[in-house]
Amino acid sequence: MSLKELETPAALIDQSRMVRNIERMQQHLTRLGVTFRPHVKTSKCVQVWKAQADAGASGITVSTLQEAEQFFAAGETDILYAVSIIPSKLERALALRRKGCDLKLIVDNVESAEAVAGFGRAHGETFEVWIEIDTDGHRSGIQPEDALLLSVGRALHENGVRLGGVMTHAGSSYELNTPEALAAMAEQERAGCVRAAQRLRDAGLPCETVSVGSTPTALAAQRLDGVTEVRAGVYVFFDLVMHNVGVCKIDDIALSVLTTVIGHQIDKGWVIVDAGWMAMSRDRGTSKQSCDYGYGQVCALDGTVMTGYQMIGANQEHGIVALAQEACADAAGQCDIAERFPIGTKLRILPNHACATGAQYPVYQAQNADGEITGWPRSYGW
Amino acid sequence: MSLKELETPAALIDQSRMVRNIERMQQHLTRLGVTFRPHVKTSKCVQVWKAQADAGASGITVSTLQEAEQFFAAGETDILYAVSIIPSKLERALALRRKGCDLKLIVDNVESAEAVAGFGRAHGETFEVWIEIDTDGHRSGIQPEDALLLSVGRALHENGVRLGGVMTHAGSSYELNTPEALAAMAEQERAGCVRAAQRLRDAGLPCETVSVGSTPTALAAQRLDGVTEVRAGVYVFFDLVMHNVGVCKIDDIALSVLTTVIGHQIDKGWVIVDAGWMAMSRDRGTSKQSCDYGYGQVCALDGTVMTGYQMIGANQEHGIVALAQEACADAAGQCDIAERFPIGTKLRILPNHACATGAQYPVYQAQNADGEITGWPRSYGW
Repeated sequence: MSLKELETPAALIDQSRMVRNIERMQQHLTRLGVTFRPHVKTSKCVQVWKAQADAGASGITVSTLQEAEQFFAAGETDILYAVSIIPSKLERALALRRKGCDLKLIVDNVESAEAVAGFGRAHGETFEVWIEIDTDGHRSGIQPEDALLLSVGRALHENGVRLGGVMTHAGSSYELNTPEALAAMAEQERAGCVRAAQRLRDAGLPCETVSVGSTPTALAAQRLDGVTEVRAGVYVFFDLVMHNVGVCKIDDIALSVLTTVIGHQIDKGWVIVDAGWMAMSRDRGTSKQSCDYGYGQVCALDGTVMTGYQMIGANQEHGIVALAQEACADAAGQCDIAERFPIGTKLRILPNHACATGAQYPVYQAQNADGEITGWPRSYGW
Repeated sequence: MSLKELETPAALIDQSRMVRNIERMQQHLTRLGVTFRPHVKTSKCVQVWKAQADAGASGITVSTLQEAEQFFAAGETDILYAVSIIPSKLERALALRRKGCDLKLIVDNVESAEAVAGFGRAHGETFEVWIEIDTDGHRSGIQPEDALLLSVGRALHENGVRLGGVMTHAGSSYELNTPEALAAMAEQERAGCVRAAQRLRDAGLPCETVSVGSTPTALAAQRLDGVTEVRAGVYVFFDLVMHNVGVCKIDDIALSVLTTVIGHQIDKGWVIVDAGWMAMSRDRGTSKQSCDYGYGQVCALDGTVMTGYQMIGANQEHGIVALAQEACADAAGQCDIAERFPIGTKLRILPNHACATGAQYPVYQAQNADGEITGWPRSYGW
């Protein structure tokens, strides 16, 4: 299958860029002396995970038990489920462990810690649980100095649960856009998580693993003393949000949406394409960043960026491509769009957010350096 | 299966509300003397379509050929594919017609009209094509007075294609919010499409079908002289966007996301739930409307609206529920959220946009009036 034969819309992976992104992250973290546990929520794709594992990754992070089941079936046993566990999900977690999956859970409160302990006792299973630490205030977790940390640690350790470590995710790094701010956030994430680990150890509790990470902080980190592993997900494809954050170049973005021109509104300078928000996702992550890319940056079929052309609007299965009013860089002048983009023209749209865009597709179309395309299935649901 | 046993997140359909919405639309359009062709892109679910058909719908509208294939396999033969056809999709359209599907295509330009004609001739197939009319400037289509209309009509009719009619979709009705503006847009949509039909007929071209519609204009229409059928999709579930437009009440919304409390950030008044943007979609359609509902309106498990509580933020699998800063109605005072929403509490979140939220799920959980829940599969992809 070649690019021209593909039906549209399609989610295209540029394998060369993907492998480059994987090597960059792996080499950076190896240099910093930590292991790397990629977050597979971005791709939910076994072939992508295999490339990460081949490059040296150690275990995976998942955002759903469905991912854990999928990747365990594909051969991965070292899995961190990085959403605070609740009692109603323990049966499924137990089933995975009983099959031989070394599934780790997380909690950030005493109720959940006690629930895991009670359930484990009732079923004769020693669960491994890590404590989620809040190092940037953006979501879940316990602050490193909070008394709650030791209460949760004890509720686990003293009740038959293996307290395996601490983990944190400084997701607010997505809101930054200078190397200095990113490096500072990486240090804040590291220091907070290491401090939490130290407090547990000082209280006589075990804390083997210290796990940190987000794509921006992982790449910005200059030292990771006290950290044992890093997690990151979107780095594997990158996207326009990450470009605005400053951690990739436009031509590092390995995921694009292939689309076909289906019509024009010539007076308005609009090209209508067959990729709408169903194909791009509704993610408008660049709308509050330094450069707003609408629903995506338009490229020619060969990947050449068409400066100034964006998907400025999207209905379910229709996208509107046009010169952006406030193009981020110098744009060519208005032209006859029907002449420049005839019906049937294929374009590639770089997405705002690779995790959200990928999620719209049952299968990726992965193109290798020779231009050959292979379908790589991805999962969805819970 | 009962509501309490369901794993979360889940996409819940309230069947009683859904049936009420279906009956309301069908009865309104029957009164106005037109047939109704529901757009199945909202649900992509055979069980929902059957309820629409049972109530009197006639044929369906689809947004992808995948939907056409799915619903044809389920027994529907009268299908309008309402996205302008391109040459690369004609093989798939032909295959459907050869199996007995009465598939109608649309075009809004001469190139595509000629492509259908040439492909039909080459394969000995008489395609039926409708011309897309632009009655509100929001997307695709030919304006009723544009000379292009007759050129496209002739390119079809004189080249062996069955010119079946005209169709339009006044999607800009989503931006309105008064009964007067909606009624005016419905009349604009009707008049423009009827005028296009008249111009074709005056030029000696056939134009049997005059098809109009969007949920807001369909419900606001007071007369539909000259129209033969109406199309609408989201009315079957409704959502917060439609509530802000003014065409449904909050308790008409038949789709909600079931979620479970997994944590708290007590100082901030945040409840963390296991539905993030993957479960809600990234659709923020209410952000520019009179009432911004964040990622959704929070309800108790029994469906009671919890005034002022919204999903104010969303990560991939985490939602942040809190009292909205600018709640639309009187909100109860701040309280101890860990006491009000203990770990494990189940909530229902009403979505901004039912089409986008539904698309995140492989299966709906449909609850009947007796509280019993049945899985209703939905399709995705292209």
